[in-house]
Amino acid sequence: MPNLPFDAAGGDQCFEDFVPGSVRTSGTVLVTEEEIIEFARRYDPQVFHTDPVAARKTVYGGLVASGWHTAAMAMRLIVQNYLSHVASVGSPGVDEVRWLKPVRPGDRLSVRVTVLEARRSESKPDRGLVRSLVEVLNQDGVVVMSFKGVNIVLCRNH
Amino acid sequence: MPNLPFDAAGGDQCFEDFVPGSVRTSGTVLVTEEEIIEFARRYDPQVFHTDPVAARKTVYGGLVASGWHTAAMAMRLIVQNYLSHVASVGSPGVDEVRWLKPVRPGDRLSVRVTVLEARRSESKPDRGLVRSLVEVLNQDGVVVMSFKGVNIVLCRNH
Repeated sequence: MPNLPFDAAGGDQCFEDFVPGSVRTSGTVLVTEEEIIEFARRYDPQVFHTDPVAARKTVYGGLVASGWHTAAMAMRLIVQNYLSHVASVGSPGVDEVRWLKPVRPGDRLSVRVTVLEARRSESKPDRGLVRSLVEVLNQDGVVVMSFKGVNIVLCRNH
Repeated sequence: MPNLPFDAAGGDQCFEDFVPGSVRTSGTVLVTEEEIIEFARRYDPQVFHTDPVAARKTVYGGLVASGWHTAAMAMRLIVQNYLSHVASVGSPGVDEVRWLKPVRPGDRLSVRVTVLEARRSESKPDRGLVRSLVEVLNQDGVVVMSFKGVNIVLCRNH
């Protein structure tokens, strides 16, 4: 399957455009110490997310981003580049969320989305379910987080 | 099993204190329109999360919180009340994340955590895995989100 840049995906795409096996990759987002701390103070105030000095004495050996923060940064890339702006209705959930490697200040994250399954809804024929594997990569190409997401996407001429 | 208030949990608890079947409930957090929009502009800029007027024309009929924002608000309650401050090492991931009902401005969310399983690590005998069902409830007692989390927790006298 073609490896589509993200800016060729999303936008005005509809259910029919999400072909199983296709892979889309995004641009990058820079992870900053300031943003790691700001997010964590508000939502995940554990010392290895909020205090660069105290974090050195933890198993992480330094400040790491909250896993929920990594998910949020990935979501920004997904919304900007992958989700349809005209046909995406929302998501009932995600599965198998895995935080595989620490995300640290200075990392540059990108997202790779692989369409796993596209299934027309039986109860609502104007839409379908798109199941995708989302992988978050750092600047070394290492997958730091992954999850499987489900999106509800309207069909063309819905 | 006793229904422990959150302030009786967390704190200095260790692996041995997470007993399968026990249930812990938290205090509440108020969801504001301002915070919904602020989070979504940064991490999930879809119109039903960022624009109260345009959101009325969507399937949600008004502004709703990003699912990742709901997860982050729940995490704050979990960290403040449930996770051990001395023995919690982190989480390899979560499963079966479900966004079940819309979360709207003015909602008051709380968290109910049920310990599903506590298993001593075979490779690292100083710690164990605690698997929990996390349910996020609104002011009407309706479960708006749920997921199953795994936490690595050090044993007493680790």
